[in-house]
Amino acid sequence: MSAIERKLAEMGLTLPPAREFPSANRRGCVQVGSILFVSGHGPHGAIPGVKDVGKLDGEITVEEGYLAAKAAALCILATLKDHLSDLDRVERVVRLFGMVNSTPDFDRHPAVIDGASDLFYALWGPERGRHARSAIGMANLPRRMPVEINGEFEVKI
Amino acid sequence: MSAIERKLAEMGLTLPPAREFPSANRRGCVQVGSILFVSGHGPHGAIPGVKDVGKLDGEITVEEGYLAAKAAALCILATLKDHLSDLDRVERVVRLFGMVNSTPDFDRHPAVIDGASDLFYALWGPERGRHARSAIGMANLPRRMPVEINGEFEVKI
Amino acid sequence: MSAIERKLAEMGLTLPPAREFPSANRRGCVQVGSILFVSGHGPHGAIPGVKDVGKLDGEITVEEGYLAAKAAALCILATLKDHLSDLDRVERVVRLFGMVNSTPDFDRHPAVIDGASDLFYALWGPERGRHARSAIGMANLPRRMPVEINGEFEVKI
Repeated sequence: MSAIERKLAEMGLTLPPAREFPSANRRGCVQVGSILFVSGHGPHGAIPGVKDVGKLDGEITVEEGYLAAKAAALCILATLKDHLSDLDRVERVVRLFGMVNSTPDFDRHPAVIDGASDLFYALWGPERGRHARSAIGMANLPRRMPVEINGEFEVKI
Repeated sequence: MSAIERKLAEMGLTLPPAREFPSANRRGCVQVGSILFVSGHGPHGAIPGVKDVGKLDGEITVEEGYLAAKAAALCILATLKDHLSDLDRVERVVRLFGMVNSTPDFDRHPAVIDGASDLFYALWGPERGRHARSAIGMANLPRRMPVEINGEFEVKI
Repeated sequence: MSAIERKLAEMGLTLPPAREFPSANRRGCVQVGSILFVSGHGPHGAIPGVKDVGKLDGEITVEEGYLAAKAAALCILATLKDHLSDLDRVERVVRLFGMVNSTPDFDRHPAVIDGASDLFYALWGPERGRHARSAIGMANLPRRMPVEINGEFEVKI
């Protein structure tokens, strides 16, 4: 088991299966040189009991959104493992684009996307886990997901 | 004629002229190493009769949005050809960021952006055309366009 | 003083201090090879008197939004200087993703984000400053900022 997966297990987290896309036209990530360009990922049920549907913050609280972002981060990790075989091949977390399904009045997007950023930071630490980021509000997301996150990762080659 | 342009012709599609920007401050794409970083492109009239204005799905149906995304993909191809001279120099479609002009209730963004993804997949096939993607809802887009798509492509160097 | 900072001074602009993030989980930019992936930056008070809060264009005019985008560009420059020590190490402006806090009816996002694009173009000129771009409308932004901009820059290595 890789060091990163051991840390996940210690946190009580389990990698979900890598996401299957409904159409053959897309996949979870594409690598160019040492850069992985990652698709948008939602929570997709990766943490049991976490809400998968609803806008911040009419239907979902910031705390629930934080957990949805953590679940989306787990789904990204599943995609990375599927592509790299071993999460220890991740050199660093480069950048996240954190999209929050927002009412026009919700303005605490960073507190939601921290659910993903805190997990990556806990796994990879201050040098390799501290990443660039945007955390912003969308008019809506597919199937009314509360969050969707894409980004770039550097891999060892 | 390049293999990709021949396929486009067989599909009955014609490349529009590469987009002229209203200000000198920007351009359609910038290449760094083998990666092309591409500007947001709308439908810009690239397919005759396709609706260029309106929100999903109050004013535009999913089927009309699909065609608008296909037109936006054609505009991206025109930018790529203008930059590369030959579309056969595209090594692979890396990632698309598909923005849909959405009412707060519309949640079928993937079905709209498939208009672009299906075209790229048809042109480059499962290895080189299957890309990473996000398909999400915006509060509005310039000149009320229904879709705008940016992304990254890998080129042969 | 670098050539770029001299130009800024001639324009009457001063670099703000590089932004401190409220959490250790993120930073202003991450470099992979020659590409800098930059976090979303708002105006953050970088130009005195520029409005830091409000939606286009109910509360903020296009002219005020233009200045907010210019201030956000200054904050990006402060991040770049903090990372590179010298802004003359920027090889070129690659791409901006310009997010405007929009009512569902506002559709002049390019005129707002030109506040950033015009500054970068003035600093780096037609070869190195002319960049790829998207300028689009968000449901909301953190702390109701009028604009947030992220992007990619190429650096000399």
